[in-house]
Amino acid sequence: MICIAACQLKLDVLNSAECRSVATAAILQAIRNGAEIIVLPELCNSGYCFLDMNEVVASAATLDDELMRNWVEIARENKVVIIAGINLYESEKYWNASVIIDEGGLVGWYAKVHLFGDEGKFFTPGDLPPLVVDTSKGRIATMICYDIEFPEWVRLAMLDEAQLLAVPTNWPWMGQIPTTPPMEVVRVQAAASQNKLVIAAADRSGEERGLSWVSASVITNDEGVIQSIATTSAQIIYSSVSLPTDRVISDKNDIRGDRRPALYSRILNQ
Amino acid sequence: MICIAACQLKLDVLNSAECRSVATAAILQAIRNGAEIIVLPELCNSGYCFLDMNEVVASAATLDDELMRNWVEIARENKVVIIAGINLYESEKYWNASVIIDEGGLVGWYAKVHLFGDEGKFFTPGDLPPLVVDTSKGRIATMICYDIEFPEWVRLAMLDEAQLLAVPTNWPWMGQIPTTPPMEVVRVQAAASQNKLVIAAADRSGEERGLSWVSASVITNDEGVIQSIATTSAQIIYSSVSLPTDRVISDKNDIRGDRRPALYSRILNQ
Repeated sequence: MICIAACQLKLDVLNSAECRSVATAAILQAIRNGAEIIVLPELCNSGYCFLDMNEVVASAATLDDELMRNWVEIARENKVVIIAGINLYESEKYWNASVIIDEGGLVGWYAKVHLFGDEGKFFTPGDLPPLVVDTSKGRIATMICYDIEFPEWVRLAMLDEAQLLAVPTNWPWMGQIPTTPPMEVVRVQAAASQNKLVIAAADRSGEERGLSWVSASVITNDEGVIQSIATTSAQIIYSSVSLPTDRVISDKNDIRGDRRPALYSRILNQ
Repeated sequence: MICIAACQLKLDVLNSAECRSVATAAILQAIRNGAEIIVLPELCNSGYCFLDMNEVVASAATLDDELMRNWVEIARENKVVIIAGINLYESEKYWNASVIIDEGGLVGWYAKVHLFGDEGKFFTPGDLPPLVVDTSKGRIATMICYDIEFPEWVRLAMLDEAQLLAVPTNWPWMGQIPTTPPMEVVRVQAAASQNKLVIAAADRSGEERGLSWVSASVITNDEGVIQSIATTSAQIIYSSVSLPTDRVISDKNDIRGDRRPALYSRILNQ
């Protein structure tokens, strides 16, 4: 069993210094409560509702700036894994990114591939598969928010042997039909169940420039069953779960072995 | 709006004549209650828990036998569409099949591709994509039970422009962790939501040779929201829903257009 925390944060696009300190405080709080893997929301160093590119530029982090060095030091000292969504400036571009840090330092970073809403005005879309890496706490995949609505994307993480999928997210409240749990969580549950993956998604709370959030951070087990789910306030949710080591679902069925990829080629059509 | 019925039936693998009459009675009942599209469970002419091949042979239907002629006549007279899971003998093989019948007769049939449990002992696996056909009531796809757990398979139906996915199913109760709704339904909801498809799944009730069923027939709208869900008894559930004509989910996002299939090629790996 491993203790996972998903940090649902109230951030402010007008105050990136505060975003950074709120995110770092949440990591430290989660560690005090025993978390070994800590997931933070999408763009947790900047907020989401940018008005113009200047705001993106002003709040972006780099892979070797103070924020990242701080998180690397925290991960090293406490032997934890941190997965965080950040506004990242790297290779002369701005990315809606997710970083994976373990006690050995930065393990890798991922750029969101399926951009939502206006994100394409500010960020370069990624063109690499979901990041899946070996960490000191297991084989961890990451993708960001809207990415998980593309079941192909979660499949790639499963096929690359991920045990845990960590999803920094900012699920916008856009007048969806209210359901319990929200449909964003239903999609997470199905992704976990269909791929036999543990999934931890860290969402936002509060409001930003008139936009609010679903505020439903969630941790599922590898059968898709909700282990912990947030209410609307800023909070950290925790769950101790077992990470899967195979995709077997019964004595006769294996969800990976039962796939028939030779019949799936049309999925590459637009 | 179109009225869809999903018929949750109590069947008996020891009495295929009764299975046929129960299935036909449900179709007629649904029509009396205003259904225009009627979905029946997997293997509704035979039951599921076969002990040997003799039982499969004894209960199989053909595409031109009395059962099918009867259903074609009912569809013609009442201008309805019937989607039914049947034990089918065709081309000298036995298939776990789904037939789609509209007022013009048999529109097509599909053979289950992802076989579950012992099904491979009795049935030849299909090797064609989900059936997607134009009917008098819209463009309808069908697949069977375990097929829907493979998100690639639902994607193929969406890419082929399905508006409704009709899923004959026998969801076995195998000691899953109990959730509300059951995880089988969660996967249906996510499939509907991620593909902007209406989905109707018809399950079983009762018990057969010691095996019982989830008994959670369900109809969702094209946002994945449950419109009607069965309790455990034999029953017909109904819902009037609008069939989607596009995959647009906001003024900036289209779940088909936002796909990036050039990045999905590894999904064809086993």
